[in-house]
Amino acid sequence: MKDAMENRTSAEKTFIAAMRALASGPEARGLMDDAAVLELGEDALVLTHDMLVEGVHVLPGSDMADVAWKLVATNVSDLAAKGAEPLGALLGHMLGDGDEDFARGLSEALEHYRMPLLGGDTVSGGPPRSWGMTAIGRAVYRPVPCRSGAQAGDALWLTGELGAAMAGFEALRDGTDADSTAYRRPMARLPEGLALAPLVTAIMDVSDGLLLDAFRMAEASEVSLAIDRAAPPLAVAEERRDDALRWGEDYELLFTMPAGAAPPVPATRIGSVEPQGFAPLFLDGQPVVNADGLGWQHES
Amino acid sequence: MKDAMENRTSAEKTFIAAMRALASGPEARGLMDDAAVLELGEDALVLTHDMLVEGVHVLPGSDMADVAWKLVATNVSDLAAKGAEPLGALLGHMLGDGDEDFARGLSEALEHYRMPLLGGDTVSGGPPRSWGMTAIGRAVYRPVPCRSGAQAGDALWLTGELGAAMAGFEALRDGTDADSTAYRRPMARLPEGLALAPLVTAIMDVSDGLLLDAFRMAEASEVSLAIDRAAPPLAVAEERRDDALRWGEDYELLFTMPAGAAPPVPATRIGSVEPQGFAPLFLDGQPVVNADGLGWQHES
Repeated sequence: MKDAMENRTSAEKTFIAAMRALASGPEARGLMDDAAVLELGEDALVLTHDMLVEGVHVLPGSDMADVAWKLVATNVSDLAAKGAEPLGALLGHMLGDGDEDFARGLSEALEHYRMPLLGGDTVSGGPPRSWGMTAIGRAVYRPVPCRSGAQAGDALWLTGELGAAMAGFEALRDGTDADSTAYRRPMARLPEGLALAPLVTAIMDVSDGLLLDAFRMAEASEVSLAIDRAAPPLAVAEERRDDALRWGEDYELLFTMPAGAAPPVPATRIGSVEPQGFAPLFLDGQPVVNADGLGWQHES
Repeated sequence: MKDAMENRTSAEKTFIAAMRALASGPEARGLMDDAAVLELGEDALVLTHDMLVEGVHVLPGSDMADVAWKLVATNVSDLAAKGAEPLGALLGHMLGDGDEDFARGLSEALEHYRMPLLGGDTVSGGPPRSWGMTAIGRAVYRPVPCRSGAQAGDALWLTGELGAAMAGFEALRDGTDADSTAYRRPMARLPEGLALAPLVTAIMDVSDGLLLDAFRMAEASEVSLAIDRAAPPLAVAEERRDDALRWGEDYELLFTMPAGAAPPVPATRIGSVEPQGFAPLFLDGQPVVNADGLGWQHES
């Protein structure tokens, strides 16, 4: 789900290496960031594309309104991490059952984020069905923040709580009465991203899980991140802490700011930025040297 | 394949009506045009998104390099019809067999059109696999031309020849030695589109077939188009003329200019624009009142 085409498998690695060779311009940011940034006259455009695939990203029997909402939210979250206000979206839609619900969920999400639909394509095909969305935004602050700017000495911050999407997923999977809203209707941290953009040294969303995404920020920034395991607030019971730190889809923002600076939005200080050590990530002082198994592996 | 989300089936009609309601801004052009036009400062951005689906748009056993080429060409053709120079593309890619070939074909096509890869998403899933591409361009001329500007009294023109893609498709389908290049590696008329943009009253590509796309231009422009059946040059034998006029994927440009004006690119005058009559299209004087069965129905 990462716009940065990050890898999971060997085949994907090979393909992504080929894509990186193609995406050699500065605007693509080496496909290492959440979104592309295209300088155009006075403006900096932010562009991101996400795909959802039935059976891979979408639970069987999902409400199509929720699928549409999530498609919008994943894209808007990438805009949020760039401090970009949405200009519009293009939709690639595979027709099928529940299209009326899909249209309704899409309408609700686009209205929520005040992002107009600009165009797209409708096709037949599947199962499995798949959907694609491109979101275009305009950065409110220049230079546009990225994940690679964390500086040793900075503090590491996180908006919101972790684990709500996990709990929602499990409620749906197990058919319990627990609230699944956070999984079905994730909220991109758009206002927070817009407010943070001028102040952060690095920022990204944690849609693939806090630990995996922190690992990536550390590698991109060529620093080490030291995370206090007990610091991130949880939306679930304390015994699920390790799961919550690895699960994704919470769409919170992870960011760094100079020590002593206070973020203008609700956020929790969860660690610090250290000079690049022998591991990108330290969790309560324990080194994490390998991203394998670190994050959310049930989605590509 | 049309960015304008044009309809084929009743289910698609319903869905597209819902999308039109969402795409109420002027930049979406009511989803009736080949691409969205987003005014941004001094620039007009042109945005288009196309999807390809295995088994629907892609023949079984296709060379993945050709699939990637076609994905790029279909998008660039929409930019061409808006007189827009490519700024970049985002790719939604479903991983699978032939990814190395896909990457090679993508590289060749992006290089050909000088369009950098900006980003995208890779996912697992399928079969059937699907791919999406968003192309972004900058219009070289304002106002950005569209399909709805044809004026009674204008002449109707067409670049190139018709039927080459059809012949290529049949060669592949039947396993003959005939040249299939035009089907596998279509050429978007980008230089022609850039040259024509300041001069035309209406323009669009004929990727869904000359007659169907002419019908759409007539409806969008609220005129009638009178086409001389014998006028369009053919890349195939004369006895295939009716097929060639209905087949798609030739990616030629159909455009209107004031009578007496000569286009700056090789093109053939194939008819004229008349005041809106009782049919949108007249072929050798015979009215065509219904778009059903008019164009290329084997793709959605």
